[in-house]
Amino acid sequence: MNALSPQIAEYIARGSWIRKIFESGIEMKKIYGDDQVCDFSLGNPDLPPPNVVGECLAGLAETAQEPFAFGYMPNAGYPHVRTALAAHLSVEQEVAASAGDVMLTCGAAGGINVFLKAVIEPGEEVLCPAPYFVEYGFYAENHQAKLVPVKTTPMTFELDLAAIDAAITPKTRVVLINSPNNPTGQIYPRSQLEGLCDILAAHNRKRDRFIYLLADEPYRFLVYHGHKTPAVLPMYPWSCVISSFSKNLSLPGARIGYVLLAPDMPEKDELMNGLVFANRILGFVNAPAIAQNILLRALGHQVDTAIYAKRRAIMAEVLTQAGYEFSMPKGAFYFFPKAPGGDDVAFVARLRDQRILAVPGSGFGYPGYFRLAFCVGEEVIERSLSGFKSAVNVKRVD
Amino acid sequence: MNALSPQIAEYIARGSWIRKIFESGIEMKKIYGDDQVCDFSLGNPDLPPPNVVGECLAGLAETAQEPFAFGYMPNAGYPHVRTALAAHLSVEQEVAASAGDVMLTCGAAGGINVFLKAVIEPGEEVLCPAPYFVEYGFYAENHQAKLVPVKTTPMTFELDLAAIDAAITPKTRVVLINSPNNPTGQIYPRSQLEGLCDILAAHNRKRDRFIYLLADEPYRFLVYHGHKTPAVLPMYPWSCVISSFSKNLSLPGARIGYVLLAPDMPEKDELMNGLVFANRILGFVNAPAIAQNILLRALGHQVDTAIYAKRRAIMAEVLTQAGYEFSMPKGAFYFFPKAPGGDDVAFVARLRDQRILAVPGSGFGYPGYFRLAFCVGEEVIERSLSGFKSAVNVKRVD
Repeated sequence: MNALSPQIAEYIARGSWIRKIFESGIEMKKIYGDDQVCDFSLGNPDLPPPNVVGECLAGLAETAQEPFAFGYMPNAGYPHVRTALAAHLSVEQEVAASAGDVMLTCGAAGGINVFLKAVIEPGEEVLCPAPYFVEYGFYAENHQAKLVPVKTTPMTFELDLAAIDAAITPKTRVVLINSPNNPTGQIYPRSQLEGLCDILAAHNRKRDRFIYLLADEPYRFLVYHGHKTPAVLPMYPWSCVISSFSKNLSLPGARIGYVLLAPDMPEKDELMNGLVFANRILGFVNAPAIAQNILLRALGHQVDTAIYAKRRAIMAEVLTQAGYEFSMPKGAFYFFPKAPGGDDVAFVARLRDQRILAVPGSGFGYPGYFRLAFCVGEEVIERSLSGFKSAVNVKRVD
Repeated sequence: MNALSPQIAEYIARGSWIRKIFESGIEMKKIYGDDQVCDFSLGNPDLPPPNVVGECLAGLAETAQEPFAFGYMPNAGYPHVRTALAAHLSVEQEVAASAGDVMLTCGAAGGINVFLKAVIEPGEEVLCPAPYFVEYGFYAENHQAKLVPVKTTPMTFELDLAAIDAAITPKTRVVLINSPNNPTGQIYPRSQLEGLCDILAAHNRKRDRFIYLLADEPYRFLVYHGHKTPAVLPMYPWSCVISSFSKNLSLPGARIGYVLLAPDMPEKDELMNGLVFANRILGFVNAPAIAQNILLRALGHQVDTAIYAKRRAIMAEVLTQAGYEFSMPKGAFYFFPKAPGGDDVAFVARLRDQRILAVPGSGFGYPGYFRLAFCVGEEVIERSLSGFKSAVNVKRVD
């Protein structure tokens, strides 16, 4: 048992129960066939990428024989891609961003790690509302920071501003929010975000080392019925948006994302220097060149979100008919219903007995609920009704 | 000055003199024109990617509209790509590797960081022969390890086995070698590598926590006049090869590489689990999907190395005529001549006065020499002759 660092060995041991859920799902599909299992466990977008992706690849095929076609570039990304992305994001994020405010990254996951590497002093804290994307804890620890989750309100999953205020310590360096949220599908309301920024500003006035607000927004494009994700950059000068094209272009494997700084951030250039340097030394070097070219062509394009909207309606109908308690998601492709009986891990096991795969809320720092990802065909959602019904009513037989 | 972590701020300050060299080069090209500057400072391969790269992109364009075309995959990479790569590397590395022995990474830089994350306990040491790729120091520190450089022999840049043996401590966890070497172009001879493995094995017998041998081999494909890079995997069970397709396919911006473990390594599966986990949590998630597809098609293809061989001959002629002392590189695309006068930083400034850009050996932990990257056109090398002559003879005027 000397092959690994103790920390990684412990991570693997700790994560084994989640892995077992996934592995038993794979096993189940082998035994019963894919069409006998309703797999809501993975947030892997199933919609095809928009046509522009293929068109761009065809164009790149034409120029691939040129020297430096995919050569090194500045660690921040192709300058012309930064320029185009800044113009696009200026509209989306309600700021006047320029090329120097944005850096291309290896997905949002790369962006968050780069950001934390650049700003964290060992022992500092990253505060985040719970439930939260489970990887955040690892990202924080990669840079010797501690993740401090603060629970959102039951059922509605809105920010508990008093609890956040109380959880801020002199070591708090970053507040990391994710809205529309994975796993809840909720959007933090504008008034709450403004309240959060007021709290952070008040703390900053009492200290030298200010608190960054980091908004992880891969689901911004995917909102329902006129809901809108408020832009945080205009609210708070030390704010930053991190996102990716994994979900809106359905290419999570291509690893392309970005970091955008509030254009009026004090010491912004210093931070950008640090981000670019961190991108280099963490081993990303630069965001993948081919994917940078794709996003340049694909800005403004996205998958057909009407398909997700329809699935959401069907899933809501299924859950309602089966008698589950849940808040309607305002964005993203997840439901986060209450686990009947209260024990989410036990209930997810009961769902598995019905050949329905879900992830317990405990995996997101929020026990008592479970996550359903509806990036699956409508027929899968429709077929799940009887299983959802049975899981509530039937006691588990071990 | 609170925008960054103190460590990153210090890195940036420390690295500023190298950046100034690059920036003054860019400035110089602006003033005098590209064709008036001989830029040997960057290892950015200028040969066009082989045709297969474009062919593969054209093929991917056809299937890009399929669901999951570039979706998430296992963090280790596409299983069929791992299988094909293992078969290819089995021949190259003289072992019988299978898919489970290899993981796709975001370039060699990603691979090294993943490896260190998986195996390093804070405070442990990474030993490497000097001169060495400057990023190694950062990679080690990313994971709270300390880089311990051990100088190779003057002019020949061969391993100093006695010095390495003496430098190994109970904290030594990884020995990281790079052959063919950047910046020297030298290949560590088989007898020396065998000697190194004997030394490591002897230390392992006295301790519980064994020492890994990590061979970073992006230049394995590029050797001259029948030279060959000995394979380390058959020599030592705790060995591992990390490499990329940046140089042999001329696509460093695409960020695609791999980690290959010695198939007979004890606790191999445990290590691979850790590597895959580290790949996920460091934010790489998986090696870029499109580049994985390209390498699958491109296995066995490479740029026309005869072009590099010819440039090497011309560069050797230029340096000889200009009166420089150097060892002929056996591989890669670098010369590492002795700096006339002994002060490499001062001499590189004198070269710059002649509009020749080089990197001082100090940047690679080996003062007294300087690096010339010959991934530039023959005409640039030929044109540099008079500048190289003048730099030796003319005193610098500040």
